[in-house]
Amino acid sequence: MNERLWSFSGGDHGQWRVTDVIAVTGEALAVTAQIDIVNGAPSRPAVWTLQGVTSNERYVQQDEKQKLVAVQQGLGRAASTQAALIPIRKSAAWWALTQDERRDILEIRSRHIEIGLRYLPPIARRLHHCRDLATVQAYDFLTWFEFAPEHAGAFDDLLAALRNTPEWTYVERETEVRLQRNEGP
Amino acid sequence: MNERLWSFSGGDHGQWRVTDVIAVTGEALAVTAQIDIVNGAPSRPAVWTLQGVTSNERYVQQDEKQKLVAVQQGLGRAASTQAALIPIRKSAAWWALTQDERRDILEIRSRHIEIGLRYLPPIARRLHHCRDLATVQAYDFLTWFEFAPEHAGAFDDLLAALRNTPEWTYVERETEVRLQRNEGP
Repeated sequence: MNERLWSFSGGDHGQWRVTDVIAVTGEALAVTAQIDIVNGAPSRPAVWTLQGVTSNERYVQQDEKQKLVAVQQGLGRAASTQAALIPIRKSAAWWALTQDERRDILEIRSRHIEIGLRYLPPIARRLHHCRDLATVQAYDFLTWFEFAPEHAGAFDDLLAALRNTPEWTYVERETEVRLQRNEGP
Repeated sequence: MNERLWSFSGGDHGQWRVTDVIAVTGEALAVTAQIDIVNGAPSRPAVWTLQGVTSNERYVQQDEKQKLVAVQQGLGRAASTQAALIPIRKSAAWWALTQDERRDILEIRSRHIEIGLRYLPPIARRLHHCRDLATVQAYDFLTWFEFAPEHAGAFDDLLAALRNTPEWTYVERETEVRLQRNEGP
C-alpha cells in the first residue's frame, strides 16, 4: 500500500462526529454519524469511503513554501477539536489547461496560496489527490482542515474567500463536512 | 476503473515482442518474451505488471503545447513497428522540490520538452504516472514510445540527449525495454 494513501470513511464509527454536511456545489455525500480516517485502506465497511494520496507540490513556489513552512502547524493539536473535510472536483476544462495557465488562475488571479497563508497557523491542513488513482473517484481532491473552536469563524472566512475566486468557477462539485472530535475513551 | 489507467504486463503473451531489456540505472525488470498493454486492469496473470494513468500536463506551458500539438502524432501508426517502454523512478530529493524548482531543472536547465519536440512527429509518445496510485509502484513514470524502424537511431539519440541533462541526475531507477510489434493473426 502506498504509505501516502489516506481513507476517509463515513459510517457509524470514527474519530470525528459529523455536525453538518453541506452540498456547496453538486450532489452532496450521504450524511453519516461519524467519519473514520485511516492511513491506508479502511479496515471495516462504511456508507462511503473517499481515498486520496498526499503528494508533491503542484503549484507552490520556493518563496511561498518558505513562508508556509515558517508558520504552518501540523494536524493532531490537542486544541483542534473541530475539523472539516472538503472534497472537490474540478471540471474537464481545468484539467485541459497547461501548467502555466492553471498557476495563473490559481495564484496570480485567485491568490489561493496567499489567502491560505493568512489563516496560518490556526488552520492546519492536509491535501490529498484522488484524480490519478486506479479506481474512479467522485472527487479530484480531499482537503482536511483542523482548528480550535475559536477559529471556526476564521475558517468560514477562508472558505468564503476561496469560493469567491476565478479558480472556483472550475469547481463543479464541492461538499463540506463539518466535524467535532470525539472525546477519548 | 479509471479510464486513464493502463497496464503493461511482461509475460508470454502480448502485442509486442521484447527484443532487449537494459538496466540503465538500478535494478532491471525480469526479461520476458512479450509485453501486453491493456487499458484498465490486466485480464491474465503475468511475470510483472506495471500500471500508470495518463493525466494533466505537469510542466508544459501553453506556447510549448501549441508547438507539440501542431506536430505530434498518435500511437498505433501502421509504420510504427518498433517501441520502447521506459519506466523511471526519480529520487526523494526531486519530489521534495517545489513546482518552480522542478520546472527550472526540467526545462530551463535540461530542455526536456524542447529536446522531445525535435523528434516529432517520428517518435510518438504517451506518459503514464504511477507515483500517486494507491498501491506501491516500482517506478514513478512509464513512458511508451512508438516509431518506425528507420527512426530507431533518432530514438537512441533522443534517449542519449535526455540522459545527459541535469534532470537525469534525479533519476534513481531507469529500465529500457525495446520491442518489436507482433504480426497480426
